[in-house]
Amino acid sequence: MPRRAVAVIGTGTIGRSWIRVFTRGGYPTRTWDPDPEQQERAWTWLKADLKTTRKRQGLRKAVARSQRELVTRCATLEEALDGVAYVQESAPEDLALKQRLFQDLDARSDPGTILATSSSSFGLDQLAGGLGGRHRCIVAHPLNDPHTLPPVEVHWDEHTNPAVVRRTTRFLLQVGQQPLPVRKHRPGLVMERLEAAVIREAIYLLQEEVADVETVEAALHLGLGLNWATQGPLRALALKADGGLHEHLTRYAAVYHRIWSDLGTDVQLTPDLIDRLARQVGPSQAGVEPQEYRAWRDDLVERIQRTKTTHQLGAEDGAG
Amino acid sequence: MPRRAVAVIGTGTIGRSWIRVFTRGGYPTRTWDPDPEQQERAWTWLKADLKTTRKRQGLRKAVARSQRELVTRCATLEEALDGVAYVQESAPEDLALKQRLFQDLDARSDPGTILATSSSSFGLDQLAGGLGGRHRCIVAHPLNDPHTLPPVEVHWDEHTNPAVVRRTTRFLLQVGQQPLPVRKHRPGLVMERLEAAVIREAIYLLQEEVADVETVEAALHLGLGLNWATQGPLRALALKADGGLHEHLTRYAAVYHRIWSDLGTDVQLTPDLIDRLARQVGPSQAGVEPQEYRAWRDDLVERIQRTKTTHQLGAEDGAG
Repeated sequence: MPRRAVAVIGTGTIGRSWIRVFTRGGYPTRTWDPDPEQQERAWTWLKADLKTTRKRQGLRKAVARSQRELVTRCATLEEALDGVAYVQESAPEDLALKQRLFQDLDARSDPGTILATSSSSFGLDQLAGGLGGRHRCIVAHPLNDPHTLPPVEVHWDEHTNPAVVRRTTRFLLQVGQQPLPVRKHRPGLVMERLEAAVIREAIYLLQEEVADVETVEAALHLGLGLNWATQGPLRALALKADGGLHEHLTRYAAVYHRIWSDLGTDVQLTPDLIDRLARQVGPSQAGVEPQEYRAWRDDLVERIQRTKTTHQLGAEDGAG
Repeated sequence: MPRRAVAVIGTGTIGRSWIRVFTRGGYPTRTWDPDPEQQERAWTWLKADLKTTRKRQGLRKAVARSQRELVTRCATLEEALDGVAYVQESAPEDLALKQRLFQDLDARSDPGTILATSSSSFGLDQLAGGLGGRHRCIVAHPLNDPHTLPPVEVHWDEHTNPAVVRRTTRFLLQVGQQPLPVRKHRPGLVMERLEAAVIREAIYLLQEEVADVETVEAALHLGLGLNWATQGPLRALALKADGGLHEHLTRYAAVYHRIWSDLGTDVQLTPDLIDRLARQVGPSQAGVEPQEYRAWRDDLVERIQRTKTTHQLGAEDGAG
C-alpha cells in the first residue's frame, strides 16, 4: 500500500537529514526551500550521503535509488504541500520568519495535515498562536542529525488535538525515530539544554585554560560519553554508590554544591572567542577530511547502536 | 620481573575499583582503610566482581585467582606503605581528613614513593601544602569506576617533581588507564564539572516538570551519549554545519545565549529533593537487581570500547 507523502520545508542540515529519515522509512517526500540553491545543495548532499551509507552498510544500489526516487523537489510551497499528511518545518531559528511560515503552512495545506516544527527555541503559542490550525501544530525536535541519532522530542499542549500527538508519535516510530515526550516548553527543550550545559562548561574550561581541547574532548568520548551511551545521567549516578542514587546524592551533596557554584556562566560567543575555539578545535579531525570524518562518526554510532540492540538489559547473556 | 607494589589507601567504591585496575595490570597491591569493615566489604566486592568479569569475558579461573593473590589487606597504614612505589589515596572528600592523611602518608612512606590523590575537590596546596614531600604529591582523579571507565585526570603544578608526573603518567598507561592532563585546579577538574553541569540541568528539568525521568535518561543514552561516545562536545558541534565549528557557533550564538540564560542554577540537594529523585529514578533498572544491572553496564561499556578500538578514525574500512 503506497504511503501518503510528507513534506520537508527548509532544507538546511536538519531538513536534509529529515529527508533521509522519511525516504528511508519509505515515505514519498516533497521538499521545498525559499532558496532554490539551498535545495540543490541538500539534494547533492543527499545523493552523496546515500552513496556513502550504501557502501558502508553493503546495501544494493537499488535501495539508494528507490530512496532517491521518493524525493520530489518542489519549486513552490503550494506544490510541496500538495496532498501531504505531515509537514516537517525546518527553517532557520528566526521567530518572525517561522511565524510567517506557519501562517502560510496553515493557509495552504490540507486541514488534516500535521504541521510539525523542528525548532526547540520557540513554543507553539509563539509559532502558531491565533492560527486556525493551531490544534494541528506540534513540536518534533530532533538532534543533529536525525538520520543518525534517533531521539525526537515531541511537545504539545492543551490546544493540540490528541490525535495529532498520536499520529505524530506513530509516524516517528514508523520511520525509526525515538519520540520523547516533553511536557513544558523551555528554550532548548531537554536535549539541547543538556547539550548546552556541557558546551558552556567545555568552552569555559578552555577559556580559563584549565585544560586543552584534547582533554575536554576525551573526558567525554573516552569516559562520560561512553557511560552515557548506556544509560542517562541519573541512573549513571545511581551506580556510584552501592545504596543507589539516594546514598550517592546524600553523601556528595556538598561536593555538587561546590562544583555547581563554580561552573562557568560568563561565556559570550563573541566573534573573537568563536575564532579562537575554531582554531583550537581545528578544521578537521586528525587530518581527515570532514566528509570522511562524518562517515566514520555515523558508522561508529550505528555500530554502537547495534551493540546496544544485541545486549539489552535483562536479555540472556549474548556472549558469542 | 616482579613489579613493585602499590598501595590503595581508602577502600570505598573508588578505592576498591583502583584495586581491580592495579591487580589487573599485574601490580602487587597493598590495601588499607581506617575502617576494617570497609576493607572487608571491598574485598567481598572484589571477589564477586572478579567472578562476574571472569565469566563475562570467558577468562580462566587462574586469571581471577592470580589477581586476587596480588592483594594484601593490611591492618595498619605502615604495613600498607611498606616498600610501595605508588600510593593511590581514595579517602572520603573531607579536606581535614585528607590533610591529616597526607601528613601521615608523607611521614610514613619511603621518600621516593609517589602520593596520588583520587580527589577532584581539593588542589595540591590544600591537601599537601607545606609538607616536606609536596613535590611527590599529584592528583590522579578517575571517573567512577576506574576499572570500567579509563580516563584519569592528572594534575600537577610547579612544586611537583617532573619525574613524578612522568612516572605517574607511565604507570597509569601501563595499567590500561588514559591519563588526561589538567593544567589548573578547579573543583571537579574537567570530567566532574562537565558531568555536574549535566546533572544540575537534568535535576532542574525534573524539578520543573519539563519532562519525566525516562525522557531525560533517553536524551542521553539514545542520543547525546551515543554521539559523545564517539567524540567530545566541540567536535560534535563542528559536525552540525558543513562549514564546521566556526559556522555553527556564529549561526547559533543567539540560540546558545538564550538557552544558557535559562539553564537551571537554583538546584539545592535538600533531603526532600533527594527523596523525590530517588523515588522517580527507582531502586533498580527495569526490575533488574543492582548487581546484575552493573554487570550489564560494564559489559556494554566494554563492548562499545571494543567497537571503538576496531573502528578508529583514519583506519581502513573494517567492514567485515
